[in-house]
Amino acid sequence: MTDDTTSAAPHPPHGYTADKDAYLKRMRRIEGQVRGIARMIEDDVYCIDVLTQVSAVTKALQAVSIGLVEDHLGHCVVNAARSSEAEGAAKVKEAADAVARLVRS
Amino acid sequence: MTDDTTSAAPHPPHGYTADKDAYLKRMRRIEGQVRGIARMIEDDVYCIDVLTQVSAVTKALQAVSIGLVEDHLGHCVVNAARSSEAEGAAKVKEAADAVARLVRS
Amino acid sequence: MTDDTTSAAPHPPHGYTADKDAYLKRMRRIEGQVRGIARMIEDDVYCIDVLTQVSAVTKALQAVSIGLVEDHLGHCVVNAARSSEAEGAAKVKEAADAVARLVRS
Amino acid sequence: MTDDTTSAAPHPPHGYTADKDAYLKRMRRIEGQVRGIARMIEDDVYCIDVLTQVSAVTKALQAVSIGLVEDHLGHCVVNAARSSEAEGAAKVKEAADAVARLVRS
Repeated sequence: MTDDTTSAAPHPPHGYTADKDAYLKRMRRIEGQVRGIARMIEDDVYCIDVLTQVSAVTKALQAVSIGLVEDHLGHCVVNAARSSEAEGAAKVKEAADAVARLVRS
Repeated sequence: MTDDTTSAAPHPPHGYTADKDAYLKRMRRIEGQVRGIARMIEDDVYCIDVLTQVSAVTKALQAVSIGLVEDHLGHCVVNAARSSEAEGAAKVKEAADAVARLVRS
Repeated sequence: MTDDTTSAAPHPPHGYTADKDAYLKRMRRIEGQVRGIARMIEDDVYCIDVLTQVSAVTKALQAVSIGLVEDHLGHCVVNAARSSEAEGAAKVKEAADAVARLVRS
Repeated sequence: MTDDTTSAAPHPPHGYTADKDAYLKRMRRIEGQVRGIARMIEDDVYCIDVLTQVSAVTKALQAVSIGLVEDHLGHCVVNAARSSEAEGAAKVKEAADAVARLVRS
């Protein structure tokens, strides 16, 4: 009986599984924007214009984070809460820590 | 006598009820810090020192927010999730919107 | 000859001096908002409504910070830059550190 | 044929020119991290671990922004301040607006 999955194991479905394709599309767009910023620096574009673009990418990443938090609360946290008090409390602590990292980033 | 208060009614217990005194103490300290910044401006303290203090108060407020989010998830969201799927989903949406406001503030 | 002022001494005019009254008014309004949050907690207002108000105060404080940074750049940094290369560089470093604290708060 | 390029034209040197290679290296690393997040989503990695990584990339982008602001203040703003009062004021306004976008992102 080798069940060595941890609670955080990479096994679907996770909160974001239903929207996986949409998230992948957003990440590819963000990757393109990051490459675009490198090109702006390469081409000696004016500092302020580079900064504006960096702020735009930061905002796009935060929007992804907010989506992931919502999906996580709606699936993993809700399911844990229904499963048992202890599991609910553990998932809540973990989610709150992730929100704290997000707010401070 | 039907008491049809809404779910958002100002009736305890809420997520923060158990820590109410601690939250009140933190808010009074923050109020004192805000008054201190006004006094710094009044006394013509150097801009950078005022800015440092404003950043400290912003951080203190964000720490309060993070605590409130954790308490809210651990009580209101968990209870709603146990109560019914619809109530859980509604509370998750509401909590995610609050996190979004927090991240963007 | 006892002139023991430091470079950061509380001597006007600073960047914000011209707008001092406006800043004091904003800080008093923020102080009132902070007191209002304490009252909400005292009155057991719903967590999410408290959180919304904390986000509003955080935003108001950040707006004050942004104003102080602009005033500081426009006076202290510009004057230092005109005075000498070394003074300009020192004020720029100090301002950039303040911006970093602001972004991370 | 008078070439009256604007002050914001993509002509070096800008504030970041001296550190161009270092900035390009940082952007390439960030690009790799963004691609890594896409791979985590592809591989169904646990939501919280994805979120942690998104927060790390957001922090890395903000560090780039803070560096660009410092370089911009130290070169473009200082030079403008030395050139004339009007140019200094214009660059300060522009820099403060960029800081505001940064703080709000």
